[in-house]
Amino acid sequence: MKALIVIAHGSRREQSNNEIIGMVDRIRSMVNDQYEQITHSFLEICDPSLNEAVADCIDRGAREVTVYPFFLNSGNHVQQDIPDMIEELNAVYPDCHIQLLQHFGKSEDMASLIADHVSR
Amino acid sequence: MKALIVIAHGSRREQSNNEIIGMVDRIRSMVNDQYEQITHSFLEICDPSLNEAVADCIDRGAREVTVYPFFLNSGNHVQQDIPDMIEELNAVYPDCHIQLLQHFGKSEDMASLIADHVSR
Repeated sequence: MKALIVIAHGSRREQSNNEIIGMVDRIRSMVNDQYEQITHSFLEICDPSLNEAVADCIDRGAREVTVYPFFLNSGNHVQQDIPDMIEELNAVYPDCHIQLLQHFGKSEDMASLIADHVSR
Repeated sequence: MKALIVIAHGSRREQSNNEIIGMVDRIRSMVNDQYEQITHSFLEICDPSLNEAVADCIDRGAREVTVYPFFLNSGNHVQQDIPDMIEELNAVYPDCHIQLLQHFGKSEDMASLIADHVSR
């Protein structure tokens, strides 16, 4: 069983966190044929943490967990903190495969998405 | 003459700022038929500031300036700080029209872009 977890930074502003949750809802409706579980998590400030989200997915039967960092910049969170967490999680759950995708900001499609916006 | 200015937060990490500059280069290659000038600016930490970028575009002949906030969340920067700056800039340059587009995170296409990534 496959799970997808989007990890965002987390904000003190409830609206920002709700925007993440809404976006993950939209992603779910697009890829629910490929992942049985699709959920959000936050690095800081609010719950669920990545560890909590992974534990929950595995409790509900996931054996393959894909983590998608919803970050624009390749700062320390993307380069160090999240990879470290994934390494630890793989050690905690040796029967599962927890893989980390490239962060959102790395996407080459982002420039064309913005080009579309500024052309309207 | 039309100018497009992308404003990003700005980081202490040079690599993050260079990623923004590289992305604006890619956007430029896509929309240079619509804007005579396309440049980047930063809200904090590094140069050029939005004020500097606007002044430079206007010096070089722009009369319509479009500002695109490259921010994921609708936090204070997006809701308050940048709109305030745009209001002030329009007062400083009454002969120009400086307009603010919706921030990047508001894009409804973002979910499909991520859905594409996690489907590969």
